Amino acid sequence: MSNKKILLAHGNGGSLMHRLIKELFLPKLNNPILKELSDSATINYKERIAFTTDSFVVSPLKFNGGDIGKLAVCGTVNDLVMAAAVPEYLSLALIIEEGLDYGLLESIIDSVSKAARLACVKVVCGDFKVVEKGACDKIFICTSGIGRVIERRKLSLSRIEDGDKIIITGDIGRHGFAVFSGRGKIDAGFVIKSDCAALADLIIPLVKRTNDIKFMRDPTRGGVATTLNEIAQGAGVGIGVEEKQIPVAKEVRAASELLGMDPLYMANEGRAILIVKSGSAKGILARIKKHPLGKNARIIGSVTKQAKGRVILSTLLGTRRILDMLSGEHLPRIC
Amino acid sequence: MSNKKILLAHGNGGSLMHRLIKELFLPKLNNPILKELSDSATINYKERIAFTTDSFVVSPLKFNGGDIGKLAVCGTVNDLVMAAAVPEYLSLALIIEEGLDYGLLESIIDSVSKAARLACVKVVCGDFKVVEKGACDKIFICTSGIGRVIERRKLSLSRIEDGDKIIITGDIGRHGFAVFSGRGKIDAGFVIKSDCAALADLIIPLVKRTNDIKFMRDPTRGGVATTLNEIAQGAGVGIGVEEKQIPVAKEVRAASELLGMDPLYMANEGRAILIVKSGSAKGILARIKKHPLGKNARIIGSVTKQAKGRVILSTLLGTRRILDMLSGEHLPRIC
Repeated sequence: MSNKKILLAHGNGGSLMHRLIKELFLPKLNNPILKELSDSATINYKERIAFTTDSFVVSPLKFNGGDIGKLAVCGTVNDLVMAAAVPEYLSLALIIEEGLDYGLLESIIDSVSKAARLACVKVVCGDFKVVEKGACDKIFICTSGIGRVIERRKLSLSRIEDGDKIIITGDIGRHGFAVFSGRGKIDAGFVIKSDCAALADLIIPLVKRTNDIKFMRDPTRGGVATTLNEIAQGAGVGIGVEEKQIPVAKEVRAASELLGMDPLYMANEGRAILIVKSGSAKGILARIKKHPLGKNARIIGSVTKQAKGRVILSTLLGTRRILDMLSGEHLPRIC
Repeated sequence: MSNKKILLAHGNGGSLMHRLIKELFLPKLNNPILKELSDSATINYKERIAFTTDSFVVSPLKFNGGDIGKLAVCGTVNDLVMAAAVPEYLSLALIIEEGLDYGLLESIIDSVSKAARLACVKVVCGDFKVVEKGACDKIFICTSGIGRVIERRKLSLSRIEDGDKIIITGDIGRHGFAVFSGRGKIDAGFVIKSDCAALADLIIPLVKRTNDIKFMRDPTRGGVATTLNEIAQGAGVGIGVEEKQIPVAKEVRAASELLGMDPLYMANEGRAILIVKSGSAKGILARIKKHPLGKNARIIGSVTKQAKGRVILSTLLGTRRILDMLSGEHLPRIC
């Protein structure tokens, strides 16, 4: 038995967490569905369904653009959407610290309710635990979700090939900065609204329309850089991205310069990365841009034969550098 | 906005929690499936599936007869079984305090793995969050589960009628006392092993064999007394139970007398209450008793026309008294 400790960085979506998953969870819970490490497990019943889970420990509970309740619903809905599944049913489990204001709980459940209604999902089962003061920080939420996988759509890393285009559905880094500034440790004079949103309405019609979307993932903890690395490593391909194509809002850029934090590593909660067939990329992008959630979408790069397993960033300065996966702790409790 | 506070008692499965569910969650998350307040949501796909969730905050993490990992799997499996569903897939979400021993986490995942293998379920998706020291107490686990509902079996409170018999599948109160004594606040000289177990192997063959099991529920938080009250109120029937028929192990009886704690209100994690057609009760009981998990099963009472919505206990002393739902806090963090 070793003396290794779990660090905050184990929970941040980056390389330490990936190692923990590979070394601890995969061997011990060994089964082919889990091994896919997809955001959702898809399971063959007579109809194919997707099943996903997430816990939410965000601090503060409310931030510009949402709260833990909205975040839980959107996060779980988005994990289903990324598996090409129409989100249908959610579970909701709450762990609450004794003494939590009833009014605060009520406002969080209101957010859950509103977000679920907007995303057309039903919360169909739940659980509720209270622990003594000091045994948890106010409230944690765990949501699981089930959705129906769209017929004849199997998104998979194995479909990705040389030349495919990479689309991001909107400007990046908002959620991370919104939560960070909500902690009130800084007054940097910027106001950034989280992108927190359910993506079903944007993505599901696209996936129904075309089979040329090969893979999707939402760049949450660890940000766009980490998600692109997951894709490059998982598919065994190289990925090249153009910094100048990556959409970043003015206020996010200002905050990142001020704080020395790179938007490419900041969490998003309402964005998706799509890997699409080259010839269809412009058509898919045009459709995404018509939706309010996709108006800042861009093609940011492409899949390459070179540099397998790596992400190469062509910078604004004209140089090229390796964009690594997030390592160590960036911002804990962002979701 | 009121100033009501969430109390520990809100999380104990008793009347305060029931009120919170009725006043807060049901109105806000209003949908017919959730309104059933069944342990699992059952959902019509082409095949009927059950979907359930639970979070686990037990303290201490290890107790005589199990740990939080085994408890999470068994609890979720049992919720599916109670809905007449064959448990198939689990999700596993962990919230972990920074600094947790890796070895402790490993042993918990080992328990999850072993319990899942024994119950023939697969953990197919997961999530992992770490919070800073002091923001949670070591580790919380949230599991959700999906199972396939056995064809032509629809358990429902509405099927319960006058004369039905009530079966408990084993002796009661073990889990509550096992966890309580594990806290080490007392050295009462008794050793009680938790009943923590997955009930699929005991219950599923029975349900497949007969349609005369009308309803099942596992008496966890709040104990047998609370579960019987839920059934009496939910079905709008009276329930009469005979104290002398209720199986209680010698060591549990000793502990309950010493501590002044009633086994009828203590949590169980490997027992089920079955409401069965009167004429089939003896046959069903005989089959249950053949299984190691059911060897102490008994018929403890029956459904009555009198005292609708209430549970009446005929005591060892020959008196009769109302057995209420658990109210206020009994033992927090028992599961």
